[in-house]
Amino acid sequence: MTDDTGRGTVRQVLEDLGDVIPASRLLTDPAELATYECDGLAAYRVTPGLVVLADDAGELTAAVRACARHRVPFVARGSGTGLSGGALPHADGVLVVTSRLRTLHAIRAADQRAVVDPGVINLQVSKAANPQGYYFAPDPSSQQICSIGGNVAENSGGAHCLKYGFTANHVLALDVVLPTGEEVTLGTEAPDAPGYDLVGAFVGSEGTLGVATRAVVRLVRLPQEVRTVLAGFRSTDQAGAATSAIIAAGIIPAAIEIMDALAIEAAEKAVSAGYPAGAGAVLVVELDGAADEVEHEYAEVERICRDAGTFELRVATDAADRAEIWKGRKSAFAAVGRISPDYIVQDGVVPRTALPEVLRRMGEISAERGVRVANVFHAGDGNLHPLVLFDASEEGATERAEEVSGMILDLCISSGGSITGEHGVGSDKARYMPRMFTDDDLDTMQLVRCAFDPDGIANPGKIYPTPRLCGERPRVVQGAHPLQQAGLAEVF
Amino acid sequence: MTDDTGRGTVRQVLEDLGDVIPASRLLTDPAELATYECDGLAAYRVTPGLVVLADDAGELTAAVRACARHRVPFVARGSGTGLSGGALPHADGVLVVTSRLRTLHAIRAADQRAVVDPGVINLQVSKAANPQGYYFAPDPSSQQICSIGGNVAENSGGAHCLKYGFTANHVLALDVVLPTGEEVTLGTEAPDAPGYDLVGAFVGSEGTLGVATRAVVRLVRLPQEVRTVLAGFRSTDQAGAATSAIIAAGIIPAAIEIMDALAIEAAEKAVSAGYPAGAGAVLVVELDGAADEVEHEYAEVERICRDAGTFELRVATDAADRAEIWKGRKSAFAAVGRISPDYIVQDGVVPRTALPEVLRRMGEISAERGVRVANVFHAGDGNLHPLVLFDASEEGATERAEEVSGMILDLCISSGGSITGEHGVGSDKARYMPRMFTDDDLDTMQLVRCAFDPDGIANPGKIYPTPRLCGERPRVVQGAHPLQQAGLAEVF
Repeated sequence: MTDDTGRGTVRQVLEDLGDVIPASRLLTDPAELATYECDGLAAYRVTPGLVVLADDAGELTAAVRACARHRVPFVARGSGTGLSGGALPHADGVLVVTSRLRTLHAIRAADQRAVVDPGVINLQVSKAANPQGYYFAPDPSSQQICSIGGNVAENSGGAHCLKYGFTANHVLALDVVLPTGEEVTLGTEAPDAPGYDLVGAFVGSEGTLGVATRAVVRLVRLPQEVRTVLAGFRSTDQAGAATSAIIAAGIIPAAIEIMDALAIEAAEKAVSAGYPAGAGAVLVVELDGAADEVEHEYAEVERICRDAGTFELRVATDAADRAEIWKGRKSAFAAVGRISPDYIVQDGVVPRTALPEVLRRMGEISAERGVRVANVFHAGDGNLHPLVLFDASEEGATERAEEVSGMILDLCISSGGSITGEHGVGSDKARYMPRMFTDDDLDTMQLVRCAFDPDGIANPGKIYPTPRLCGERPRVVQGAHPLQQAGLAEVF
Repeated sequence: MTDDTGRGTVRQVLEDLGDVIPASRLLTDPAELATYECDGLAAYRVTPGLVVLADDAGELTAAVRACARHRVPFVARGSGTGLSGGALPHADGVLVVTSRLRTLHAIRAADQRAVVDPGVINLQVSKAANPQGYYFAPDPSSQQICSIGGNVAENSGGAHCLKYGFTANHVLALDVVLPTGEEVTLGTEAPDAPGYDLVGAFVGSEGTLGVATRAVVRLVRLPQEVRTVLAGFRSTDQAGAATSAIIAAGIIPAAIEIMDALAIEAAEKAVSAGYPAGAGAVLVVELDGAADEVEHEYAEVERICRDAGTFELRVATDAADRAEIWKGRKSAFAAVGRISPDYIVQDGVVPRTALPEVLRRMGEISAERGVRVANVFHAGDGNLHPLVLFDASEEGATERAEEVSGMILDLCISSGGSITGEHGVGSDKARYMPRMFTDDDLDTMQLVRCAFDPDGIANPGKIYPTPRLCGERPRVVQGAHPLQQAGLAEVF
């Protein structure tokens, strides 16, 4: 049975899978389905038609193949911690959950490689590699619960991406089931693999090109020394100036984070991190590397912070002290619930040089609209995480918050930045894509999508504001070229 | 006029371009065409039907559009220094030369960005950025003449890629003319751009996805201190052991290079670099960074080299000394002409941990076959450049050299490595691709190729051993899945 779009039904997929996967892991009970109706972005909720809790790569592949056969949409979900609605289910589709695939197949420290299932928790990779002196570098704040498969889908970042790069820089090869049901391997374990870098294209494709069933990731050597500095400033301007001076000095810290007064207030209420009282901003700088190098860089960072006007500087040299400093930072998003009943977590990027101006403009927008905005951000690479605070029970407050949130994104774009630093486009930001890319640019991306997924069943509705009709040949440009516009050519 | 494959002719392209591009830059004279019959891999030669010397992005676009309109194959060429025959022309096609597009549009040091034309010479970017304290990191040995467009096409590496990564890690955005004639922008200047990472897929696509007309690249800060160490060893085994110990100590030098006795002999004959007499191998280690850090790392490297048995250790601390050490290394390929009338430059990768075993096996193959093999390689990332020496005037020598060259690639693959580290697949290695990838893996790459180039006109015959017929829908897998093979499922 197919409807007039050529799509089959979830029931058909269920029938196919019934003999392959135990009924206990094929969820159709509305109460059970409700658990999966949203990811970390709870603003969007859709109940899926069927949830498949796959136990291994074979079941994962079987689920995708059944969807392919019946042209039924599917959405892959790892731990469900994403913040852009990338794992928002499809009402007439299947939600394929990878979180039970948790086997760590190999930690090969000498080659700096780990081979893992998609459901393996980010932090588990580091825990397994630590005894041999290695770790997995990408560290989203959710790293205690988010999965490698989700990291791959979203190209997850984290505080330490300034120095170590995003997930894309740490994935070498992927076993993937394509939306057509084919099983392929993308990439190789060797650097600079021949052929197209499809690992790079797949990482960050937000589930629209298929589902990873296994990943080979890079392990990074644990640094000899880590030193974390917490500096209190009177204003974000001062903290921003210190950031610029540190980078200008040629230092690349493992992380440079800024929290503003509102964010500090929230973190203190939630976890009592002991941040400097009365601070308008705190700067967290983490240095890592050889002991001598860290010592040398620390001296420079201290001098720069004092020159920029820090009134309190605290240094953590052991793991417990460090955890204390990071506790406030990593809990900041959740902590904002202590100072506001509702909030939007925004995620944008601006060139580092534009940070002071963008922060000032954001302050003005906040004041003009009467909407409080807390700021927690990866200052080193200009990745902002403004938290727009509101009380949904107040008349019009939600709309005002959403407006301010959108204005902040516009500000990022007009400053030469981007609509997302690390949370992805997902369901939330597809509408902003045309502000960053021309129709032709978006069409080119969708050419790739159509090549992988001609029936448009892999996470439809995400990333792209206007789905491309697949099956049509790319048009060959017949028309004007630049010289014709200048009146120089007649033949075109 | 089109032949029965639906392709038009070079003459039609020439007629279209005649009104747009001056005749002096549309080459059809056989004597002029001969200049372009090969790139750095002179073993393959094809005379193109037409050479277009484009002067700007408009002309470049016009040339590609004319080819698209008539379905005529085209090959893009930068400086023509590639070593895998990637810019080998098509006999019935157009060679589009980008080397006249040499405008450096902007050096924005504060943002660490440069905006350049595709024909800009690699080293020129660094020269332009140096006064502001920055440089462009990828440094192929040909960097004095190779172009950024060629670097993009081949994902060029170089001695310093161990620490700084390949070209792919340094390109943020590209203006591209697609094989259909569309002009699009891939990527953004912001890190981790939303949507698919098509910059990553385009970089290293060897001219099969289109032609870059402008690039935004990353600039890296010049290090405070650079120290280059040259250590003479009795054997490559000793030099290899020192390399492993350096990496195991957690040091990531800017470069670690090894040359064996034959390569040293060649370099000495050519440039008198003053390498240690009687060395079985030299190790070149370059350290860079903050002065204290370099000092600290140098002490460790010196100790490790002495432990590994170096009999002569020389340190360059100024630019002139450094240039002297690098002169031998960078001239090694060409220098081999001094000790052998003919040679094949091979390019393979092995896991660093497999280096000693692979070098031993290579020595055995060389002895067994009576074919001399000189070795110059990026030891830090296991990227080998064996030079297979022969005298083409000797009966059967060419065949024996080619056989040994192929055996070395097989050795790389069976050791878990790759058929190319940085020179690309091009014309030369397409036949080896099936040894690294399954048909399905290669088909997946060609799905992308077909999406960009449905008529197969962009550098046809390169990379892929068997061109995929475009236009067919990817097949939806209907057949067995892993569980069926285990006898667990009936429905598939």
